[in-house]
Amino acid sequence: MKHFLSVEDADNVDTLLDQAAAYKLAPLKDAALGKGKRLGLLFLNPSLRTRLSTQVAASQLGMQAIVFDVGKEGWALELEDGVVMNGSSVEHIRDAAPVLGSYFDILAVRSFPSLQDAHQDYSEVLFQQLKAHSGVPLLSLESATLHPLQSLSDILTIREAWKENRRPKVVLTWAPHVKPLPQCVANSFAQWMIEWDAADFTITHPEGYALKDSFTQGAQIIYDQEQALHKADFVYVKNWSSYEAYGSTPEVPGDWMLTETKLRQTNQAKVMHCLPVRRNVELSDSVLNSASSLVTAQAANRVWAAQAVLANLLKSIAHKS
Amino acid sequence: MKHFLSVEDADNVDTLLDQAAAYKLAPLKDAALGKGKRLGLLFLNPSLRTRLSTQVAASQLGMQAIVFDVGKEGWALELEDGVVMNGSSVEHIRDAAPVLGSYFDILAVRSFPSLQDAHQDYSEVLFQQLKAHSGVPLLSLESATLHPLQSLSDILTIREAWKENRRPKVVLTWAPHVKPLPQCVANSFAQWMIEWDAADFTITHPEGYALKDSFTQGAQIIYDQEQALHKADFVYVKNWSSYEAYGSTPEVPGDWMLTETKLRQTNQAKVMHCLPVRRNVELSDSVLNSASSLVTAQAANRVWAAQAVLANLLKSIAHKS
Amino acid sequence: MKHFLSVEDADNVDTLLDQAAAYKLAPLKDAALGKGKRLGLLFLNPSLRTRLSTQVAASQLGMQAIVFDVGKEGWALELEDGVVMNGSSVEHIRDAAPVLGSYFDILAVRSFPSLQDAHQDYSEVLFQQLKAHSGVPLLSLESATLHPLQSLSDILTIREAWKENRRPKVVLTWAPHVKPLPQCVANSFAQWMIEWDAADFTITHPEGYALKDSFTQGAQIIYDQEQALHKADFVYVKNWSSYEAYGSTPEVPGDWMLTETKLRQTNQAKVMHCLPVRRNVELSDSVLNSASSLVTAQAANRVWAAQAVLANLLKSIAHKS
Repeated sequence: MKHFLSVEDADNVDTLLDQAAAYKLAPLKDAALGKGKRLGLLFLNPSLRTRLSTQVAASQLGMQAIVFDVGKEGWALELEDGVVMNGSSVEHIRDAAPVLGSYFDILAVRSFPSLQDAHQDYSEVLFQQLKAHSGVPLLSLESATLHPLQSLSDILTIREAWKENRRPKVVLTWAPHVKPLPQCVANSFAQWMIEWDAADFTITHPEGYALKDSFTQGAQIIYDQEQALHKADFVYVKNWSSYEAYGSTPEVPGDWMLTETKLRQTNQAKVMHCLPVRRNVELSDSVLNSASSLVTAQAANRVWAAQAVLANLLKSIAHKS
Repeated sequence: MKHFLSVEDADNVDTLLDQAAAYKLAPLKDAALGKGKRLGLLFLNPSLRTRLSTQVAASQLGMQAIVFDVGKEGWALELEDGVVMNGSSVEHIRDAAPVLGSYFDILAVRSFPSLQDAHQDYSEVLFQQLKAHSGVPLLSLESATLHPLQSLSDILTIREAWKENRRPKVVLTWAPHVKPLPQCVANSFAQWMIEWDAADFTITHPEGYALKDSFTQGAQIIYDQEQALHKADFVYVKNWSSYEAYGSTPEVPGDWMLTETKLRQTNQAKVMHCLPVRRNVELSDSVLNSASSLVTAQAANRVWAAQAVLANLLKSIAHKS
Repeated sequence: MKHFLSVEDADNVDTLLDQAAAYKLAPLKDAALGKGKRLGLLFLNPSLRTRLSTQVAASQLGMQAIVFDVGKEGWALELEDGVVMNGSSVEHIRDAAPVLGSYFDILAVRSFPSLQDAHQDYSEVLFQQLKAHSGVPLLSLESATLHPLQSLSDILTIREAWKENRRPKVVLTWAPHVKPLPQCVANSFAQWMIEWDAADFTITHPEGYALKDSFTQGAQIIYDQEQALHKADFVYVKNWSSYEAYGSTPEVPGDWMLTETKLRQTNQAKVMHCLPVRRNVELSDSVLNSASSLVTAQAANRVWAAQAVLANLLKSIAHKS
C-alpha cells in the first residue's frame, strides 16, 4: 500500500479487515513497527473521532504523531499552478508539500469540499498535489469526495456484527439534516461495499440526491425508502447534499428520518451512522438508544482501521528503504 | 478514587496531600504506573496552567496525554435529552461520551459556566452526562462550579509554607475585577478547606457576593474585610461574580484590592491567588512582587496535585481490570 | 549556550554548523541527551515549519515537546511594569514567566512585531521579560526583530551547496509583497552572515527599505538590484517593510521580483527564500521550479539547526545541575 486515498489503494478488502481485527485483539502486537517514524496529521478542517483514533493507532504502532490543526483560513493554500499569488493565498502547495515530506514519514490530511464547484471538489487537487510533491505516503483523513478510514471501520463493524451464513442486506439511506453536507461518507461507503462484495447493497435516497455514478455502479438504487428497507440486516443512515445540483438541498417530500416504525420493516436491522448525528432529525432517539445501534462500535473501530492502514504504509516504506 | 470532580471524590485530603508531596520529591517514582494508558484532555474553554501541569503530570506517570482543544463554539454539544437537534448543536453528549471512553482510559474535561442560568450551571450536566455515559474515570480540569485540582494545589502550598505548631488562620477574600468571573475557584477552595479542617477558615466578601452555602457551611463569613484579615496567616485573593443575582457584579462600596497596608493587619500573611491575576486591580504590584506571594508556588504545585490524582485514578482502573 | 535569541548567543557559528551537519548525518546520535527534559513551545503567532521542525528536533534528542498555541488575542499578555490591569490584558508576563519556567526545562517562544511602533518592537520586551523571570533557557522561534533558527538553517544550506575553494558572493535582495512584513528574517540573516564572515555579503533594496544599521554593519549595501546580483553565487530573496518609516511600504519604482532573466547576471546563483513565498510576486515560478532553488533544502535543514541549538541548551542545563 503506497497511499490510502480510496478503496483502490487496498490490495484486498478482507485482508485489510483481518489486519484491523487482529489489532483489535492485540493492540500492541506491532508496537515496534513505527519506531523512529513520524506521522504528520494535517487538519484543514476540524475533526474529533478521526484525529483521536488516528493518534491512538499511531501510538500503538510506536509512531510519533504530530498534529497540525490549521483552518483553511489560517493557512490559505494555493493549489493552482502558474498563478500570480497576489491575493489571499499565502503558500503554494508545491512549496509546502516537499517540506512536509521532509519532516514526516507519512502524511495524513483532512480537507473538506467547498460544495460550490463539483469539478473542483471532485478533482481532489490538494490530495493529488500532495501525492505528487511530498514524496511520502499520503493518508486521507477525509477528502472532498471520500472518507476511506470511515468506510473500512464501517465494514469491520458489519463483519463483526454479522453471524449468519448468508450475505446480509445492507441499505444506505439518505436522511434529513439542517444544512448541506458533503457526499464523501456515502460515496466512500458505496465504493467499499461494492468492492468488498460480501453483502447485497442497496442505496435509497430522494430524487435529486443521486450520488456520482462512478461510486455506486453495482449497487441497487431505489427511491422508495420503505421498499429499500424491506428485510434489511443493516441500515446505514447518512445525509448528503445534492451532487447533480451541486451542494444544494432540494426540498424532499415525505419524512426520511429513520424511526422504530420504519425499522419494523427490516430484518431486525442493526443501525449505523458515522457520527456526529442530529438526533430526532436524522435518526430518532429511541433507535439510537436501542440495542440496534452500532454507532459507538463504528467510532471505536476507527482505531483498528487506522492502525491496519498505518501498518501497511509503514511496511511499504520499509520495503523502499 | 473512581472520579475526581470535587473533594467528595477524595478519600482523605491529607493522604492525597502526602501523595502529591511525595511526587514533588520524586517525580519519576511511578514512571511505569501509566504505561500503555491514555489520558484525553478535552478543553471546551482555554487553559494555560491546568493544561500544561496535567500534561506534565501524565507524562511523569508514563501516560500518553492527548489534548483536544475545542471551543464551545467549535463543538456545540447538546446536553439535554430528547430534543430535536435542528439548531446549532452538532453532537449529543450521549453519542460523544462513549466514543471518547473507547479512545481513552481517563477523560479530563474543562468547561466554564455560562453565568446566565444558575440552575443550569450548578447542575453540571456536562460532567454528569460524561460520568454516566463515557464508562471511564472522569477528571475535572475546572467545571462550572468547582476546580478541585486548583484547590488541592492550594492546600498543598499552604501545608508546605506553614511551619508553626498551631492551626493557621486562612482568609479567602473577594477582590475587584473588570468582568464577571465564575465562582468555581472560591467554591472549591471553601469546600476543600472545610473538609481538610486543619485551619481556621474565614471568607470575606461584600454584601451580594455570598457563595452557595452548601460549599461554605463551616466557614466563618465576615463582610468587613479589615476585620477578617486581622491576624490572618494566609490570604487567598479571588474575584467572583454574584451567586444570588447570578453572574452579575453588583457595585461594591470601598476598596477591596489587597494592598501592603491591608497586609499589615495580618500576621505577616502569605498571599495566594490562582492566576491569572489583574495586577493593581485584585492585588497590588508590591504585594505580588514581595516575598509574601505564594502565587508561583501554587501554580508550580499544580503538577504534583494532578500527578497524585491521576495516580489514584490509574490505580482504580488497575483494580477493576 | 545559555539562551538562543540571536547570533550573539552562539559561541562560534562554524562549530554550530558542524553540530547541525552531524545531526543531519546521524539524527539519533544523541537520542538520550534530552531524556526526562521538557521543551515548552509557546506560539503567540502561527507557525508551520518552525513548529514542526522544532518538535522533530526535540523528539530526536529524546525530549518531550509540549506545544502551546495561543494567539496574541487569546492570551493578551501585559508586558509593562506597574500598570493597572483594568484593560484587555489578562495576565502579566512577570506572573506567567516563572510558572512556565516551573513546568519546562527550556522555553521556546514565537512572537511577531506589531509593525506599529519601532521602539516597542525592537526592545523585544516579551523576550527580555521571559529571560529575566522564567529561570530557564529561552529559545527564539522568531521574535519581532530576529529569526536565528532560520538564519542558522540558511547558512547551513549555503555551506552544503558551496563546493568551490573561494568565498562565495551572497546577495540578500528585497522583493515585492502584497502586505507589510517584519524585518526579522532579513535582520537575522544579515547578522549571521556578517558574524560567520565566510562569504562576501551584499544587501540590495529600494530606497526607504534600509534595515537597522546595527544588523547590517559590515555588509555592502547597493540600491541597484542589477548591479548587486552581478556574479552572485547565492541570492536570498525576501520582502520586508520599511524600518525608517516603520512598518510602511513606500512605493517602489521598477520591478524587484527575481526572474530567470535577472538570474542570468549571476554566477548561476542558487536561490533562497525562507518560505512561505508568494509565487510570481517575490519569485517567478520558473525560478522556484528550477534546480537553482534551495528553498526546500532550507526548510528541511530547520530540523538540524533546531537540534544543534537544543542540544547546546540541554548541555548548559546539565552543567548547571
